[in-house]
Amino acid sequence: MSDIDALLSEAAALTEKTLDRLLPKPMDTEAVLYEAMRYAVLDGGKRLRPALVLASAKLFGVSENCAVRVAAAVELVHTQRLTHDDLPALDDDELRRGNPSVHKKFGEATAILAGDALLALAFEILAGPETHADPLVRANLVSALSKAAGGRGMIGGQMIDIIAETETLDLGAVTRLQRMKTGELFAFACESGAILGRIDSARRHALHAYAHDLGLVFQIGSHLLDAEGRPGGEGKAAKIPTAGKETFVTILGKERAHGQAAMLADQAIRHLDIFDERADDLRTIARFVLERQS
Amino acid sequence: MSDIDALLSEAAALTEKTLDRLLPKPMDTEAVLYEAMRYAVLDGGKRLRPALVLASAKLFGVSENCAVRVAAAVELVHTQRLTHDDLPALDDDELRRGNPSVHKKFGEATAILAGDALLALAFEILAGPETHADPLVRANLVSALSKAAGGRGMIGGQMIDIIAETETLDLGAVTRLQRMKTGELFAFACESGAILGRIDSARRHALHAYAHDLGLVFQIGSHLLDAEGRPGGEGKAAKIPTAGKETFVTILGKERAHGQAAMLADQAIRHLDIFDERADDLRTIARFVLERQS
Repeated sequence: MSDIDALLSEAAALTEKTLDRLLPKPMDTEAVLYEAMRYAVLDGGKRLRPALVLASAKLFGVSENCAVRVAAAVELVHTQRLTHDDLPALDDDELRRGNPSVHKKFGEATAILAGDALLALAFEILAGPETHADPLVRANLVSALSKAAGGRGMIGGQMIDIIAETETLDLGAVTRLQRMKTGELFAFACESGAILGRIDSARRHALHAYAHDLGLVFQIGSHLLDAEGRPGGEGKAAKIPTAGKETFVTILGKERAHGQAAMLADQAIRHLDIFDERADDLRTIARFVLERQS
Repeated sequence: MSDIDALLSEAAALTEKTLDRLLPKPMDTEAVLYEAMRYAVLDGGKRLRPALVLASAKLFGVSENCAVRVAAAVELVHTQRLTHDDLPALDDDELRRGNPSVHKKFGEATAILAGDALLALAFEILAGPETHADPLVRANLVSALSKAAGGRGMIGGQMIDIIAETETLDLGAVTRLQRMKTGELFAFACESGAILGRIDSARRHALHAYAHDLGLVFQIGSHLLDAEGRPGGEGKAAKIPTAGKETFVTILGKERAHGQAAMLADQAIRHLDIFDERADDLRTIARFVLERQS
């Protein structure tokens, strides 16, 4: 079995080294934009999505140099979302992982522009020849990540999340919201190894199924942490959930939510049965996501 | 000679048909996001950048079906910028081409998310197999557009524009700002035909040079329109320039600005000398950009 701490810290170190290199500190007039981008992304996050990319690439013997660029791109997209979601017009969060959020530190205008630039940079990285020698792989990575990030994925999920503050959603709608908001980017991270390895078969589908179950485990966990008043899974300050806003916990109750998460984590791991021990990192990550305490 | 009205209206009709198809109206919870994206992009703009893409593609015999997808992607990126620039934290514009700006119509949160989704969609379109059969062309398009849009291009230019409100820039710095803010996206539009036609030679460099001169003509023109209190070239309401903010007109004076624009337009057209009459559309557009009255 893999050790989760070693696994996450290795993924974090690799990804951060790459991000540091891809985001140089310019001396030009616009330097503050890059400072804000660096501040947003080099903030000591858990780097769960990069760990998934690296674990997925390992399954297919993909070179780490290629995989870590994809890991960096996923983290940039994730950070773009956090940066914009923290804005006053959206979730209005002043803190992120105990530090001032990007707009508190740099102002709203810079935070908006930094988020935009992070998103553009993610696609620039994927399309670059260093990511993969085969241009079809690069185009496929851009295709998959832009869909996962866009109006039918992460950004659309955030839109529903805002609507959910005033409208009541049922369990199906909450599941769809979470699948879009979190699940699609998880799915991209988990499948990216198969895209890089040019695998398009039952093995890619197994990773897709794993990712969607894992995404739901992650979100149920976040809702449970919120309900218990503990810092949420995305580095947010502990926050009283918006009155009336439906979560897995308000709909299912705590006990059933716990049970559902355990069932889904188990199911996620079973999707990996077609792989040998090279999938142990993915198995370890699934257990970690189920049991995480912050 | 090409007729500019016919040229622009044909480019607009083609591009809008494609955008309409690429932005379906969903019936799901997040429908408002797509409504806001459609409102932002299907707003009767002049479609100058799409016209440049189509004119550039014509030079190399690229199929219109491919070129129009690139034209749509460029227009989405341009619209993303306008949508976010109009936000209260940036330029705080309540009107765009005489209509409420996206955040006035849909609220700030939706405007921020719609801008994000427009950017993601632009890359999704370019990476899709319908844009070109050769995946290297698709990857090159994504590379070029993400650089033109990013922190070293359009978004970085907007950052400098914000900094320029409190710091004094000299002519070199204003030129660099405008080159990033407007010029890079113009350059992508003009070079996209060469990317689609797999031309990497003096002909692509000529288009690059044409585009950068044209971008400056466009910006000097916008500053002149602003200085004369007429509606600006980007569909903005007439606006008193921010006190102390340097523009080509405050630095050069009106007369020299006019002269500079005429000289640059002439130079832009001369860069096209290596092309035959197939470049007439680009020549016509350069004259139009110099003489435009709004």
